[in-house]
Order: sequence, then structure tokens, then C-alpha cells
Amino acid sequence: MTWKIYLSGEIHTDWRDEIAEKAKALSLPVEFFAPVTNHAASDDCGVTILGQEPNKFWHDNKSAKVNAIRTRNLIEKSDIVVVCFGEKYKQWNAAFDAGYAAALGKSIIVMHGGSHQHALKEVDAAALAVTETPTQVVDILKYVIKGEL
Amino acid sequence: MTWKIYLSGEIHTDWRDEIAEKAKALSLPVEFFAPVTNHAASDDCGVTILGQEPNKFWHDNKSAKVNAIRTRNLIEKSDIVVVCFGEKYKQWNAAFDAGYAAALGKSIIVMHGGSHQHALKEVDAAALAVTETPTQVVDILKYVIKGEL
Amino acid sequence: MTWKIYLSGEIHTDWRDEIAEKAKALSLPVEFFAPVTNHAASDDCGVTILGQEPNKFWHDNKSAKVNAIRTRNLIEKSDIVVVCFGEKYKQWNAAFDAGYAAALGKSIIVMHGGSHQHALKEVDAAALAVTETPTQVVDILKYVIKGEL
Amino acid sequence: MTWKIYLSGEIHTDWRDEIAEKAKALSLPVEFFAPVTNHAASDDCGVTILGQEPNKFWHDNKSAKVNAIRTRNLIEKSDIVVVCFGEKYKQWNAAFDAGYAAALGKSIIVMHGGSHQHALKEVDAAALAVTETPTQVVDILKYVIKGEL
Amino acid sequence: MTWKIYLSGEIHTDWRDEIAEKAKALSLPVEFFAPVTNHAASDDCGVTILGQEPNKFWHDNKSAKVNAIRTRNLIEKSDIVVVCFGEKYKQWNAAFDAGYAAALGKSIIVMHGGSHQHALKEVDAAALAVTETPTQVVDILKYVIKGEL
Amino acid sequence: MTWKIYLSGEIHTDWRDEIAEKAKALSLPVEFFAPVTNHAASDDCGVTILGQEPNKFWHDNKSAKVNAIRTRNLIEKSDIVVVCFGEKYKQWNAAFDAGYAAALGKSIIVMHGGSHQHALKEVDAAALAVTETPTQVVDILKYVIKGEL
Amino acid sequence: MTWKIYLSGEIHTDWRDEIAEKAKALSLPVEFFAPVTNHAASDDCGVTILGQEPNKFWHDNKSAKVNAIRTRNLIEKSDIVVVCFGEKYKQWNAAFDAGYAAALGKSIIVMHGGSHQHALKEVDAAALAVTETPTQVVDILKYVIKGEL
Amino acid sequence: MTWKIYLSGEIHTDWRDEIAEKAKALSLPVEFFAPVTNHAASDDCGVTILGQEPNKFWHDNKSAKVNAIRTRNLIEKSDIVVVCFGEKYKQWNAAFDAGYAAALGKSIIVMHGGSHQHALKEVDAAALAVTETPTQVVDILKYVIKGEL
Repeated sequence: MTWKIYLSGEIHTDWRDEIAEKAKALSLPVEFFAPVTNHAASDDCGVTILGQEPNKFWHDNKSAKVNAIRTRNLIEKSDIVVVCFGEKYKQWNAAFDAGYAAALGKSIIVMHGGSHQHALKEVDAAALAVTETPTQVVDILKYVIKGEL
Repeated sequence: MTWKIYLSGEIHTDWRDEIAEKAKALSLPVEFFAPVTNHAASDDCGVTILGQEPNKFWHDNKSAKVNAIRTRNLIEKSDIVVVCFGEKYKQWNAAFDAGYAAALGKSIIVMHGGSHQHALKEVDAAALAVTETPTQVVDILKYVIKGEL
Repeated sequence: MTWKIYLSGEIHTDWRDEIAEKAKALSLPVEFFAPVTNHAASDDCGVTILGQEPNKFWHDNKSAKVNAIRTRNLIEKSDIVVVCFGEKYKQWNAAFDAGYAAALGKSIIVMHGGSHQHALKEVDAAALAVTETPTQVVDILKYVIKGEL
Repeated sequence: MTWKIYLSGEIHTDWRDEIAEKAKALSLPVEFFAPVTNHAASDDCGVTILGQEPNKFWHDNKSAKVNAIRTRNLIEKSDIVVVCFGEKYKQWNAAFDAGYAAALGKSIIVMHGGSHQHALKEVDAAALAVTETPTQVVDILKYVIKGEL
Repeated sequence: MTWKIYLSGEIHTDWRDEIAEKAKALSLPVEFFAPVTNHAASDDCGVTILGQEPNKFWHDNKSAKVNAIRTRNLIEKSDIVVVCFGEKYKQWNAAFDAGYAAALGKSIIVMHGGSHQHALKEVDAAALAVTETPTQVVDILKYVIKGEL
Repeated sequence: MTWKIYLSGEIHTDWRDEIAEKAKALSLPVEFFAPVTNHAASDDCGVTILGQEPNKFWHDNKSAKVNAIRTRNLIEKSDIVVVCFGEKYKQWNAAFDAGYAAALGKSIIVMHGGSHQHALKEVDAAALAVTETPTQVVDILKYVIKGEL
Repeated sequence: MTWKIYLSGEIHTDWRDEIAEKAKALSLPVEFFAPVTNHAASDDCGVTILGQEPNKFWHDNKSAKVNAIRTRNLIEKSDIVVVCFGEKYKQWNAAFDAGYAAALGKSIIVMHGGSHQHALKEVDAAALAVTETPTQVVDILKYVIKGEL
Repeated sequence: MTWKIYLSGEIHTDWRDEIAEKAKALSLPVEFFAPVTNHAASDDCGVTILGQEPNKFWHDNKSAKVNAIRTRNLIEKSDIVVVCFGEKYKQWNAAFDAGYAAALGKSIIVMHGGSHQHALKEVDAAALAVTETPTQVVDILKYVIKGEL
């Protein structure tokens, strides 16, 4: 069995690559999914494909919906959803993904630094593990899949 | 039929009261639900009832879970979920609620000021209406329930 | 038990009133639901409440979504969905409602004249009864609820 | 992961072939599904296999149900449902499919010309993208699957 | 709480009345549902309301579908489904109802005489109780609802 | 895509083999499922594996439950459920399977001779096709899968 | 809104009465459900109503199934499931109820003494609150329903 | 088709190996799943990966949740859940798994010695087979999958 892991949230650091590399080094049978992490493409995909909008709201709305085709399908197909909150930005889409995954009954792993602890208490309370580093995420994957610490 | 409306998010302004009063003035057949909006009670309910925790993470975890008994039940029972984002704070729980409601197929109305527009684009894209004021929310409820503008 | 009946489609004739009156004359324990049938209000609710749009697409999109808050909630709450196709107009929203109701496993009654028979064959095939008149619809409700012809 | 795409609606133009060719040229990992597009076979499959019917209603009913074995199974298996409305005909089956897909929570892409804009507003409001050309549909598939514009 | 009980099957004996009377004598908080038990009405409701059919198959098909509006709605609303098999007739609709209720996760009580034991083994195996008399059914309802033998 | 077809009912004629052979001759991408058709094994599997029972009811109950492990899993995995009623026996398990499949939303094809028409009207009304011969079943599979008559 | 609370587990102490009395003193809008707590009736209901069994396994099987009509219906109707583990007995039915409630997405409150802490870690991990006394349970109900500590 | 079998419960004897070996000897197309059976790893995985906890409750809570990522995913993916109760220990997690599997509609096979018969009556009543030995479990798998005794 191949485990499907969705990596949600933070797109300005290389945490996804770090997880993928460590998982590969361990030969874990995993398939990683993620939102489009090219910030410019993610912001502009809607108007680029479907036509320009003078109003910023509809510009964003078109793109958010095109991105939703990808994100909702992949979250629904995943066994585990990892949600990472970085140090900066509002990241409401990450919290939205966490809520979406929770309502679907997905296993959630949250990753964030200590400074966000209080503000993320509702998200953490919906998770089966709260981590701070990619290494911890991979350690969990290794344990969950192979049964080894 | 009585419509059940969950009012999620912002707890530092009186937007819930404003919506409730306007709805009452219109005699709309609605029942409003909300999280516990007493900030101190919400933060401390876990340890007050279940015992103190020296570690802040578990202090928050206990309370977030007790609050989840209320919020998840009421969101699941609601026909419409209104999610309000205020000007301050992270408000990840509001975005989490929006994601949770979206995955359950609830009708979502978002309320926020223009400054949050770009950051909330994924949440707005999951909504059936994006508003800025309690009056707009009540106008929608009035129209949806009574068919009158 | 009160039966909940959603009356979808055609808004330019008084078929809903006719069904409601006949049902009332029979004292059937029914609660009728319907979309907003005020054509102007239905078309303009979005921009009236949420702000004007220069682009007709977004004008319509805003209204269609506000109307969806009503229609999807009421269809989901209904036991029986009656879908009426009139002689004129595209009425794609009626066919959309029929598909929506079918996927939810609702009991569907279709009402239309003979001229639409071939074009509506897929919709008819998803129905438990295909009628031509409000009297037939009420006869079915009477039989289904009271067991009398 | 192979994405499953159902192509619903219009059967008198070659839009499905155009999408399939462009997707193949891009080596997109997609599997396309569609209703039976041979108009005569689709109309007559029921009576050809199951026996003639003197009444046109039952002739059509038999065929519509046999076709439903194919269409409902394939829509339910799909990740994305593309619904195309041509310039002619009632196409109520296309709107029915859109409603069916919406209730199942499928990602919907609608394709139609500008003349249908107002009449299709409810269908468009249920979609994550509204397009006018097969190229736009493939551009979305490319972006959603490969993350590239 | 009022318990909803669907009484499926046999329509040629008065077992439903017997159960209802005994339940009433015990003041059990129950609401009984049943198919239309007027055999002639049940057979002919379709053509009486929707128009005659020269072919017996369509005559029966129309009626079976109109009856399904009642039976499927009421089974889905029930907490307990009692399925009674009489001594005569094929009673495939009773077994169909049992399968339908089983897939919905309903609590099933079967009632039949010993002569059908082997032939009904699959139906019995899906039941939480296999009875032979209306008194046993009511004893179960009394125990389940009031906790008294 | 490989279509999964469950062949329920009649175990005293070779209709399953006939369907399988014709499907193979057409190279249809299908996988056929069926209950255990060895009558003696099906009747005695419970007590043979789990221990003898002096009471015939429990003898049958044990076997029916072991068989249910197979039948329920395979029906739930199937895209199409074909239910065949032979000329003899009660065949309540076939009607039970049909009801079970109907509640799960499976596409149902019924096969039976004309003599059973009236008694099977509720089962037929839940089907998307009513056939009399294995050839018709295979013709439907061919059409549904390949789009060819 | 009246909250529905299922009280599962321990039947040899009066914890249910204690919770009910305290809730009543606070005028909480709650409806309590419970399994049959008369031990003898619970053990013998099956054979008393449905006939004696010489084999203890079937004696117990009949009763467990009759009891399941009550317990599964009431757990499915509840908003909150409280599971109490006493000091004695295996109480596997309590753990079974907890697992059943967890899979249904119910809010779970567990109550047990410290000596069971390690053995109940999987059950506790599925709960939103772990308590030791009826007073704590009522404090949670009061807070969750009225928002007051 | 490969059958997916989850082996829950007892971790101090080699019953899983025995089942796997016998199944392999028969070339059964099965994939076995299990919780982590290394007792120490299972107890300590949480704190080892996520950080030590001075309080035993949170020590256990962290581990139970990490283990739940594995167990819930694998139970949900399984066709059959075998739950084994050994002679010793509380084994509440085994009963919890049985309840969880029952609410998901999984086919359950229970395995335990005669001494637990009365205490496990609710669990046994939710099962499709109650066995005492690994050989019986494999005999059921063989029969269910290959149709041979």
C-alpha cells in the first residue's frame, strides 16, 4: 500500500522538499501531494486562463477556484494531511485546509513553531500530532507506515 | 421552518448582537448559534473543569477540545454558517470553521473588511456570499428566507 | 409526519399556487418549499445586497449564489422534489435541480407537456412519476401520504 | 495519479476530441470519460436490446435508463466534470449532469458561449471555472495537474 | 423521543393492526409507517393517476414507482423496520425492503413462520431479531423503548 | 477502466457462465463477482468451519453470515449488480440483494422470465434495465462499456 | 435546542442518576439516553421474548442483538456520548460503544478512575474530554450548552 | 481482487503470523494490516518523536494519537476486520476497534476463547463470525475468497 500525504500551507520555505527527501532516503511508500507552490502562478492562474478582471476581488476569486480544483481533489484522496504554518503571513488557507480535512475525517499532522501555539490551539486540537520540524513529520510517517522508531 | 445560523469568528466586537437584533426586528424565523464568546471562559474552560496543566500547550488543548464539543455540534446542525474576520488577530479558528463547514457542504457567508480581501481569497471562494457588514448578512437572511429584498 | 415538498422550475405560471390550493383543500400534511419566484428579485438580489457589478457575468453570479443558499438548503430538506418545465425558456436551472435532487436520492416528480418529452428523457428517467398537470401531482401526494386514490 | 475527467453535454461538435488531443500532446496523466456520443445508438439502445415499444415515452425511457448505467457510474468515478453547452438544442441532460455532479461535490468546469450566459447562471455558479473553449479547459487541466501555466 | 417503526411485507392479514393495538395499550411512544395496504389501489395507482398502459409491465412499473415515493421515504425515516413474510405469495418486495433497510443500517426485525426458515436465512441473518408473532414484536418494542420485560 | 459486475441470484442454471463467456468473446474489460454457487458449501460453510449446531436456525444463521462477508463486500465494490430470478424457489436472497444494491445507489439489471413480471414489479422498478436472457445482459454491458450496439 | 446525551458503560453505580439530577438542578436543556441498566433484563431479554436457548452463546447473542436495537439507535441520535468505565468487569461493551461513537464522529466524553489510565489510552485519545466524576461531566455540559463555567 | 484484512487486538501471541502463513500456503490473494505490535514502540512513539511528557496521561495520549494515524487509516481501508481477544489484559483498544469497524459497516470476525464468551457478547453480536483459532479465521478467508471449504 502506498500512503498518500497532502502537504498544505507555507509556500515560502522548502519544508516540502525536506520531507520528500528524507522520506525517499527511507524508501517510504508514499506519494506526496501539494497545492501549486509557485506563488505568481497560484495568484494569476484564473485570469491568465479565463480572462482578465479589472476588480481584484474577481481576479482572486477566479484563481482561488481554479486552485480549489486541485486542492480539494488531492485532500480528499489523501490518507494524511500535513498542515504547516510558517512564521509570516495570515495563512488562512492553511487553517481552511485543516478544517476541511478535519470534517472529512482525515488524519491531520500540524507543523508550526512555538510562537503560534496559542493562536493555533483549535487547529492543534483537531490534529493527531503537532510537530515543529520536517524531521518529526518524517519520523511519524516512518513509524506509522513501517512500525519502526 | 426555522433556519439555523452559526455565527463563527470574531469575538471582540458586537456583530452577533447586531445581526440578532436586526433579524428579530424583521421577525425572521432563525435560531442563532455561536461559540462561547467569553474570551476568558473559552481559554480556561478545560483546566477549570478538568484540572490544571503546567504546560501551556495542554492547557490550551484541553480547552480547545471542550469548546469543540460545542462548535462542531452546532456547525453540523446549522443550515448557514456566517464566518466573520475582524481587523486584528490571527483568527485561524475562523478559517478552520470555514473549511470545516465547506467540507460538510454548508452554505457559507463570509464577512470581512477590504484589507483582508487577498488573504481570504480561498475562504471567499468557498462562500456563497461575501459581505462587509451585519446589515448585508441580515439582508441575505431576509431574502433567502422570505424571498424579499 | 409532515411531508416536505420542493417545487422547482417554471416561475411564469401559477402551478405552485394550484398545487398548494388543492393540497390544502384535501388537508394534506405538507409543507411546500420553492425558489424565490419574483423574477426581478431573483435576478438582482446579489448586486442589490452586495454591491453593483459592471460585468453581467458577475452580476448574475452574485445572485445565483445568494439564491443557491435558499434552493440547496430547501432541496436537501425535502422528501419529494417536483420539477416543472414550462413551454418557454431554457430552464436549465430546473434540470440542474433535478440532477441535484437525483444525486441526493430524493423522490422526483417531473411535470411537463408532451412537446418536451424527447428532450427531457434523461430527467424523466430519474423520476418516480412523470405528470402533465398540477392535479396529477396532487393526486400523487394524496395517494402517497394518505394511501387513497 | 491519473486524473479522471468526465466530458458531459454537447454531442454534435468535436470538442471532446480537441480536448483529448491537446491533453495528449501535453502528456497529461488523464483518463477521459464521456456518454455515448453516437446519437442514434444513444436514442435506440433501449429498444434495440430490450425490445420495441409502440409508445415513444417508453422507447425513450428504456434508452435513457440504459445510458444512465454508463453516465452515472462514470460521473461518480470522475475527479472533474466538464459540462459543455452547445449553441443549439435544449441540452437538459447536460444541466442535469451538472446538478448531479454538484450534489456529489465534484469539481465542475462549464464550457459555453456568451449567448447562454444569463440562462446558465445557476450552473455557472456551481462551477469552479467557466470557460468558452477547449483550449481553456486543457489549460486548466494542465495547471491543476502539473502546476504550470 | 418517539420511535418510528416501518411495518413492511404481508398485506393480507391484520398483523399491523394487532401490533398497533398492543402498542397503544402499552402507551408506547411509537409512530407506525406502512406501505399502502389496499391491494387494488397499490396495483393501480400509477395508471389511475398518470394514464392507462396497454402493456402490463408499464402498468405495474408506473404503480411500483408511485408506491416507491412512499415506501422509500418512510423506510429512510424509520428507526426500526419490521418485515413480515406471510405463508403465501412470493413477497419479493418484502425481501427487497429488508435488503434496502439493511444497506441503510436500520434495525431490522423479521417476522415469519417456521416453514420459511431456511429460505429466509439471509434475511434473518441481517436482522437483530427473528420473531413469529405480533406479540413478540411488541414485546421487543416495549423492552427496547421502556427497558421493561 | 475495468467494470465490476456482481451476478446475484439463481444458482441452479449456468447463466453466469454464459454471460462470462460472451463477455470474454467480446473482450469486455469486466471483472465478474458472484456469491458462492456451490449449494452444499453455501448451506454448510458455517457449521463446517465454526462448529455444528443442533438447531437448524443457527446452522443456517452461521452460514448466512459467513456468506454475507463475501456478498456484501462484493456488492459494495461493484459498479453494476445483475439480479437473476429463476423459475423455481423463493429466491428471497436475490430480492434482498436487489434492495441492498438499490439503497447503495448501484446500477441494477434484473433478469427474469415473464411469469414473474407482476410479482417482481417493485424490484423491476428499482432497475435500470429488465432483461430476460444472458445475451441481453451482455448486450447492455457491451453498449454501456464500449458504446456500441 | 435540546442536547441529546447518551450515557454508556458502567451499570453498577448510580452515576447516570447523579448526572441527571445535577443537570436538572441547572435546568440544562438535555435529554439523556442510556442502555437498559437492569442487568438481569439486559442479559435475558432475548430468550424471554424470542424463546429459550440451551447454548449460552446463542442465549447471549439473542439478548445482545435485542439490546443493540436500543443502543445503536440512541447512540446515532445523540450529540454527545459519555462513556463510563467502572473499577470492575471487562466492560468491553463500553469500549465498543466508544469506538462506534468515534467512527460516527460523535463528541465523546470518557469517565474513569486513574487506575485505568494506561489501559484506556486509545479510548481517551478519541475523546474530547476525559473526566473522573459526574460533576465534571455536568460542568462540561453546562459550559458547552450555556457557555458558563 | 486482493482482499484487505485488518488484524486487530492481542499483541502478545503470534496469531497474526499463524494466519499469514496459512493464508500464504493457500496462495490467498490477501493483504494483511495490523497495528504496530512492538509493545515498547507503540507505548513510546509519541514522546520519542514529539518530545517527553512528565505526565503519564499526555505521554500515553501522544502515542495513542500517533498510533491512531495508522490504525484508523488501515481499518477504513480494510474489507474484513479480525479482532482477537487474548486471555489477559483489558484489551479495550480491541473492543474499541470492533466498535469502530462496526459503525463503518466492515465485516467483522472475532476470535477469542470460551472464557470471554459472556463478556464479549455485544462484540460477538456485531460480528459475522466468531472463531476460536487462527485456522478457523483462515478457513473463513479461504471460503469467502475462493468459495471452497
